[in-house]
Amino acid sequence: MIIDIHAHVSAPIELAAYKASLLSHRGAHGRGKVGASDDQIRAAMEEPSRFFGGISHLAHLDDAGIDLQVLSPRPFQAMHSEEPAKLVRWYTEETNDIIHRVCQAYPGRFRGMAGLPQSPSLDPREWTHELRRCVGELGFVGAMLNPDPMEGTSPPKPPLGDRYWYPVYEVLCELDVPALVHSAGCRPPARESYSLHFIVEETINTISLINSQVFKDFPDLKLIMSHGGGAVPYQAGRFMPGALRRPEDGTFTDRLRRLYFDSCLYTQDALELLLRTVGADRCLFGSEKPGTGSARNPETGRWFDDIHLLIEDIGWLSGDERADLLENNARKLFGGLDD
Amino acid sequence: MIIDIHAHVSAPIELAAYKASLLSHRGAHGRGKVGASDDQIRAAMEEPSRFFGGISHLAHLDDAGIDLQVLSPRPFQAMHSEEPAKLVRWYTEETNDIIHRVCQAYPGRFRGMAGLPQSPSLDPREWTHELRRCVGELGFVGAMLNPDPMEGTSPPKPPLGDRYWYPVYEVLCELDVPALVHSAGCRPPARESYSLHFIVEETINTISLINSQVFKDFPDLKLIMSHGGGAVPYQAGRFMPGALRRPEDGTFTDRLRRLYFDSCLYTQDALELLLRTVGADRCLFGSEKPGTGSARNPETGRWFDDIHLLIEDIGWLSGDERADLLENNARKLFGGLDD
Amino acid sequence: MIIDIHAHVSAPIELAAYKASLLSHRGAHGRGKVGASDDQIRAAMEEPSRFFGGISHLAHLDDAGIDLQVLSPRPFQAMHSEEPAKLVRWYTEETNDIIHRVCQAYPGRFRGMAGLPQSPSLDPREWTHELRRCVGELGFVGAMLNPDPMEGTSPPKPPLGDRYWYPVYEVLCELDVPALVHSAGCRPPARESYSLHFIVEETINTISLINSQVFKDFPDLKLIMSHGGGAVPYQAGRFMPGALRRPEDGTFTDRLRRLYFDSCLYTQDALELLLRTVGADRCLFGSEKPGTGSARNPETGRWFDDIHLLIEDIGWLSGDERADLLENNARKLFGGLDD
Amino acid sequence: MIIDIHAHVSAPIELAAYKASLLSHRGAHGRGKVGASDDQIRAAMEEPSRFFGGISHLAHLDDAGIDLQVLSPRPFQAMHSEEPAKLVRWYTEETNDIIHRVCQAYPGRFRGMAGLPQSPSLDPREWTHELRRCVGELGFVGAMLNPDPMEGTSPPKPPLGDRYWYPVYEVLCELDVPALVHSAGCRPPARESYSLHFIVEETINTISLINSQVFKDFPDLKLIMSHGGGAVPYQAGRFMPGALRRPEDGTFTDRLRRLYFDSCLYTQDALELLLRTVGADRCLFGSEKPGTGSARNPETGRWFDDIHLLIEDIGWLSGDERADLLENNARKLFGGLDD
Amino acid sequence: MIIDIHAHVSAPIELAAYKASLLSHRGAHGRGKVGASDDQIRAAMEEPSRFFGGISHLAHLDDAGIDLQVLSPRPFQAMHSEEPAKLVRWYTEETNDIIHRVCQAYPGRFRGMAGLPQSPSLDPREWTHELRRCVGELGFVGAMLNPDPMEGTSPPKPPLGDRYWYPVYEVLCELDVPALVHSAGCRPPARESYSLHFIVEETINTISLINSQVFKDFPDLKLIMSHGGGAVPYQAGRFMPGALRRPEDGTFTDRLRRLYFDSCLYTQDALELLLRTVGADRCLFGSEKPGTGSARNPETGRWFDDIHLLIEDIGWLSGDERADLLENNARKLFGGLDD
Amino acid sequence: MIIDIHAHVSAPIELAAYKASLLSHRGAHGRGKVGASDDQIRAAMEEPSRFFGGISHLAHLDDAGIDLQVLSPRPFQAMHSEEPAKLVRWYTEETNDIIHRVCQAYPGRFRGMAGLPQSPSLDPREWTHELRRCVGELGFVGAMLNPDPMEGTSPPKPPLGDRYWYPVYEVLCELDVPALVHSAGCRPPARESYSLHFIVEETINTISLINSQVFKDFPDLKLIMSHGGGAVPYQAGRFMPGALRRPEDGTFTDRLRRLYFDSCLYTQDALELLLRTVGADRCLFGSEKPGTGSARNPETGRWFDDIHLLIEDIGWLSGDERADLLENNARKLFGGLDD
Repeated sequence: MIIDIHAHVSAPIELAAYKASLLSHRGAHGRGKVGASDDQIRAAMEEPSRFFGGISHLAHLDDAGIDLQVLSPRPFQAMHSEEPAKLVRWYTEETNDIIHRVCQAYPGRFRGMAGLPQSPSLDPREWTHELRRCVGELGFVGAMLNPDPMEGTSPPKPPLGDRYWYPVYEVLCELDVPALVHSAGCRPPARESYSLHFIVEETINTISLINSQVFKDFPDLKLIMSHGGGAVPYQAGRFMPGALRRPEDGTFTDRLRRLYFDSCLYTQDALELLLRTVGADRCLFGSEKPGTGSARNPETGRWFDDIHLLIEDIGWLSGDERADLLENNARKLFGGLDD
Repeated sequence: MIIDIHAHVSAPIELAAYKASLLSHRGAHGRGKVGASDDQIRAAMEEPSRFFGGISHLAHLDDAGIDLQVLSPRPFQAMHSEEPAKLVRWYTEETNDIIHRVCQAYPGRFRGMAGLPQSPSLDPREWTHELRRCVGELGFVGAMLNPDPMEGTSPPKPPLGDRYWYPVYEVLCELDVPALVHSAGCRPPARESYSLHFIVEETINTISLINSQVFKDFPDLKLIMSHGGGAVPYQAGRFMPGALRRPEDGTFTDRLRRLYFDSCLYTQDALELLLRTVGADRCLFGSEKPGTGSARNPETGRWFDDIHLLIEDIGWLSGDERADLLENNARKLFGGLDD
Repeated sequence: MIIDIHAHVSAPIELAAYKASLLSHRGAHGRGKVGASDDQIRAAMEEPSRFFGGISHLAHLDDAGIDLQVLSPRPFQAMHSEEPAKLVRWYTEETNDIIHRVCQAYPGRFRGMAGLPQSPSLDPREWTHELRRCVGELGFVGAMLNPDPMEGTSPPKPPLGDRYWYPVYEVLCELDVPALVHSAGCRPPARESYSLHFIVEETINTISLINSQVFKDFPDLKLIMSHGGGAVPYQAGRFMPGALRRPEDGTFTDRLRRLYFDSCLYTQDALELLLRTVGADRCLFGSEKPGTGSARNPETGRWFDDIHLLIEDIGWLSGDERADLLENNARKLFGGLDD
Repeated sequence: MIIDIHAHVSAPIELAAYKASLLSHRGAHGRGKVGASDDQIRAAMEEPSRFFGGISHLAHLDDAGIDLQVLSPRPFQAMHSEEPAKLVRWYTEETNDIIHRVCQAYPGRFRGMAGLPQSPSLDPREWTHELRRCVGELGFVGAMLNPDPMEGTSPPKPPLGDRYWYPVYEVLCELDVPALVHSAGCRPPARESYSLHFIVEETINTISLINSQVFKDFPDLKLIMSHGGGAVPYQAGRFMPGALRRPEDGTFTDRLRRLYFDSCLYTQDALELLLRTVGADRCLFGSEKPGTGSARNPETGRWFDDIHLLIEDIGWLSGDERADLLENNARKLFGGLDD
Repeated sequence: MIIDIHAHVSAPIELAAYKASLLSHRGAHGRGKVGASDDQIRAAMEEPSRFFGGISHLAHLDDAGIDLQVLSPRPFQAMHSEEPAKLVRWYTEETNDIIHRVCQAYPGRFRGMAGLPQSPSLDPREWTHELRRCVGELGFVGAMLNPDPMEGTSPPKPPLGDRYWYPVYEVLCELDVPALVHSAGCRPPARESYSLHFIVEETINTISLINSQVFKDFPDLKLIMSHGGGAVPYQAGRFMPGALRRPEDGTFTDRLRRLYFDSCLYTQDALELLLRTVGADRCLFGSEKPGTGSARNPETGRWFDDIHLLIEDIGWLSGDERADLLENNARKLFGGLDD
Repeated sequence: MIIDIHAHVSAPIELAAYKASLLSHRGAHGRGKVGASDDQIRAAMEEPSRFFGGISHLAHLDDAGIDLQVLSPRPFQAMHSEEPAKLVRWYTEETNDIIHRVCQAYPGRFRGMAGLPQSPSLDPREWTHELRRCVGELGFVGAMLNPDPMEGTSPPKPPLGDRYWYPVYEVLCELDVPALVHSAGCRPPARESYSLHFIVEETINTISLINSQVFKDFPDLKLIMSHGGGAVPYQAGRFMPGALRRPEDGTFTDRLRRLYFDSCLYTQDALELLLRTVGADRCLFGSEKPGTGSARNPETGRWFDDIHLLIEDIGWLSGDERADLLENNARKLFGGLDD
């Protein structure tokens, strides 16, 4: 069985139009609503998409043998840095509601992961109302956490190792749900695309977290770094010597292993490096499917994001490790997957 | 016959989704395209809309007896202040292309009025390429001009009486087409909604223009102030005494009459005040239909934006004046309406 | 009898020199004082002024048959945005003191309306000390309230519908006096003159107030919008459809009628539009005399600001309505006019 | 004979009122004019002033035996940092015109020293038009130069040793007139009063000039540092060691002596220190009379600004030195004093 | 006996390298340490220095007959404005520790004066921990206080007369130690060198203090203005007339005499002016030796900073006055010099 | 034979002290000089260092069998963002001069790689004077290029794919020398350490370059990305699908192979991933020795930066590939290594 913990909802075009509308009227028309019918919601999951290789979201899952997928909002659309803050709240709630409706439309196939209304002009405490609503009322099993609510504008908020984030950590621990660390959009004057910004943020915040007091203050906090941790596993050697200076905190590898990592990497070399660096027990299967990798590799004919095939190809992985990676680790981390 | 010179295209939802996409990826996905079929374009004009009183764009026109409508982009969606500037260019061009397709889909029923890619980080000279394309290649008959490309952010660009705008005026005169002055969105820290910002901008820029050198430097420039000129006709008395100080420029009324005004006001009192203040010969029929006024007045049963009925109700207007207002003034100002 | 509730003191030149001095030494010379004698104060009211058509303040009143005038500071001189804040306090207090001396010099002819030291770097609570002093100690009957203490600089303070202003509303209600909403100066980077800024601010803040909780939280609050409410009555139709969405708050007209409006408009068309739109019972006679309109209309020979003549010319106004407008409404709104 | 080269005009109150008016309307009323009569101009020079010890400007001169005084604008009123820039230009020109009228009203008693319209948003080249007008058309004999047109706001313009100032130096040399270096107002966030800012600016700019290329590039440039050079003569020892590192530029004293200094210091100790440090041949009599020092010293009964008495009391000064200081140095530096 | 209260430690080059390191890694390497041996510390005091005329710190003291010197950090190296704030704390503590080691290395020859970690992003309360440590644990006898922690960047913190500084004054009074007011570095956009900035800050803050409530609120506070008070004694006459307006606060001289001044001036004229202006009883011997003045005057052969020789040369000073200035005043002001 | 192209000079402590001095006086003391003797320069290379595992720079090279090392300035000390710009120029030139002296001290052992004075307030054209000097006069064989002269402050300069950098590329091509892309310091408000900033900058700029016109405009440009290209080889799969959209530019791998990469990674897994991803022919041996990795791995006893051992351990690498990586690729890319 395969559980995919990193995936984003394929929402009907009405959600995008709703977003465009909010950014046009900036609240003057009131909250409005997305106004998508159940049919439109199902169609968005079932109709072939030109952006994702010409097949549907569900077809991607079927092809890849993904049995259960944890669905979160599509991050680059989150618009956390837009003003006024109520736009962010409205859009986030509408998106989570659509995820909930998808979960209901396909019983047993999906679980929800909440987006948070991370407007930088709101206190992080304000963000947690939606987390409580999604877990408490909608049955979601986790949250996505954007480490850069400024979306590339300056000055940034403090990184995830800072006390600024503690109100969110408190509620995550209280509700006993994990968070997938995943940045959102990226705007000028930042130089990089949102996709590259993901990598940059994962890099900065992985290091920030493991050098911080966070896991001393929240020993039960469960954080999953997206995309295999940005640059960190690849650059791990660079940080090993420095870690020797504080032996009481363990080696760099020990520290990395306080975090979890998803497998969202599209080459076997990268995947092997990740598994070797942090251990299969700290990795969760995540495909981001359908998404950036949903194109066919002309050399192999495979989808780039057929990560389960890459995993199969790793000869040195034991059957147990493979099963943990594909299913069991997710079950341990997330409550509610067995419901 | 009724010619309506102030109206905005009813575009298929794909255009909004395209905008949302641009603002999410900020250019990282490339220009892309709206991808609306001809059927979708016609449907957007022909299907009832919950935003506009439950009937379609075309039905509104038919009900109101509007024979010919000059279609411009929907201004509050223009996003001129978004970065990077290429987003503005792409979105503006796509929008103009859709207007063009609407015109082609309904021969004789519509003419195009171009949106301009008024990114404040581009030189106004850059904006005029699209003006030339729309008039030269697409057969558009005018342009819409946003006097506040900053969309309520600060500091503003200079007002329309300033030389900053001369590159646009030069091309308008060269192509011999009029511009409808109409602001776009409005964002924090501005305090007002985009709709109220329209009024503010028309107020500030009407006064800026008539106190400037613009009509000395461009005697053939044809500018139409939207929404009956903001506050100016109502507040005209306030500006009359000051105008006496420079008698060589004429009275305040003389100066106002260097501009044109549309009739886009939804009360008869306001309409009468406008006509009395600037003269029927400086007014053009504009309904913004369907739009802000496309709701039924519960007291009268009429659509608020049934401006042609308000005009009919003005007893003191002669038949010639009424015909000028409804049709002839537009024909004089715009080339290409008879084609 | 005519009571004029919108008028600004004609102060001796010493007050302007005092202001110039404050802005030159920025507080280094201490508070100082205006140093105008009683004779100078009377002269300023009685000597012909080249700025106001060559006759005196009192002569204007006599000519127009204004029996009682409520005098406030001349708004465009208020300098609320100047630093340090103590300059604003000193200048405001000195101005109010001069108004008080004028009231004393002409018993029965004038009442005082307080300027407030609205420095944006002070908490609005600080502004109310002067309001209490003027009403409690000097017998003033109301206050003038500037909705833009930033005077056109950015970012603006929140509009009048925001809780930011509640400390002022509380004291207005406690003292049971009305406020005349009237902006002050306007500086770069704003594009408009102070006089046009008046109109802009009245437009933005009329809409802000009637869409807010203010009159639910302060049902007894009495606010008078200057200059006939900026653009709002003229553009009323534009806002009527939107108001239908919240029927529990009444129609747009109902909402407008929670405010009062002065008659300070210099054309009969505008005056009629105002009276028709908001009702004669919500209008107060205000002439701003002598002021912007104190020039003779070369076509009619009348002073532009002879608003009482315009009112006389409105044939459809009943005698009672005329009396209410010219006198009774003011008596109802303002305490202390009968003393 | 005594020639006083540092003194500011006592202008009629109408000039202050004019300034207040400009800062209130910010240009909306047009340039206007001061509107002071010849009588008012004479009265301002001849009537006792409460700010200056209760006697008149002329009485001060008579009491002190000042035969000829070079009159400049009162610096703390210059408002160079106010926007828009045209206000600065108008006010400066009006002030210079009043100085000119004073000179004409008292033939042989006064000479004019021009204020410059030093708006920081104008190119310094723009400032020199008024310098040419004053010298060429009004017969002025020099200019006052404000080294901080930002008036204490940040960031400052470069100091006087920078090429930024060369357009002014070029015209000073071409016209062969000296400039009195004297700052103007001082606004928040600066912490000091305008009067203390004078001292700060003289300190910074004396050092900037003598460490620069200015006197190599303009060997004929004549600059007079006000108030005895700020802190520099007192702190001269502090700068002597550093000067030894570039012996080709001379000692620190040699460098100081490329400048001129006025005697505007109100204690004998300070005056003696100045004369000993820079030499009597580099000092010019300047009293700033009437001004900051126009109060009676309760211990001596003298006016604080009776600098001629302090000079008399310096026993070691030769008769020639005293005559040079009081008269001859000024005649050498300024053309036009003998006319 | 001579006690020198204004002198800065000659630290081994390792301290500068430590500073360079902090500013390079910005905290990433952790606090680290200076790592100077006792030998290096002694060498820095005993080896000839090319910056200070080719002889050693100790040789300077011996030559000048300075028996006891109060050593503070070298101010221009304090880097108070650098971020993050912990760099400032680390560097300040390391510097104070080196001063302490110097004091221990030469028993009876030196006393310590603490630098404070005046990061502008910390509350001044935070600065006082180090003051308590230095006085309480290291036996230091006073502190150096930088009135401009922004080091020339803008906006400045309030001047020393403001309540902002009260947390520091409270601890100074509680510990009963004096503070030497002395600014630190100076960075762009400020126009002046750090050395000239010293003078500017002393000028501004001397005036701020004596016009404030500080000495009413802290009657026992002991503040010493460096470098003879900047420009103030030289410009004292300028401030005397203004002081007459508040006779209850005493004359300007009375006010000046609430402060202390060091003798750190390198010309006899300046020194005499200081002593005459504030009185020998308010002056303390301070040489800044070795420092800015440690070069030989080619005309006299003396070191510029041989201030004791200048004092000897002042004929009118009595023996008692001279002894007070050189020794007794320091003993009265500082506790712990007799230990 | 082993040629190490990524290494930074071990300079005597005097260079750090020189930097500290510049940042303290900000130019006021003039340029000064480092003042290190030849003995000190040799000692810095030959004495054991506590920062680098207790052995010397040369000992590290000998231990690792590095025959020839290309020495550049130590990047985190470059201080490119400090003002005024002349500090950057002075410090860079002094550093390059020390590198030159090291090269001369050990003939045949080292070659110089120039630091550039990349002050963001200078035009990049200005930076190239030092490049010409180093190559033309000092015989250096390449340059180090910092892609973020703002050092983490905002807004950033454009990334390396932008025309902003063309003046540097032109001179690199003209002189036919490669550049090692390597960022410098990192300051608040950036959240990451300088070392992590290296990785972030390599990531952003690798992607910027391969998506730009740079290699079309400069086909001969030779750029080496440090630290194995940041995150890019590890995340390569993520960028492969997008590259398919522009097949004319080749696959993502093709594009990566327009750049060179150094081997500066401290785990075998990472090294293998790099070699597999970009090919051994695009990799150059670089150890950064001694540096971040110069600590002994407690598990293996090896130095972390013994990259040559990691390379030896890669069984699948052919002898030719190994020789190319360790020596031949460097000889092809750099001129002057054989001299």
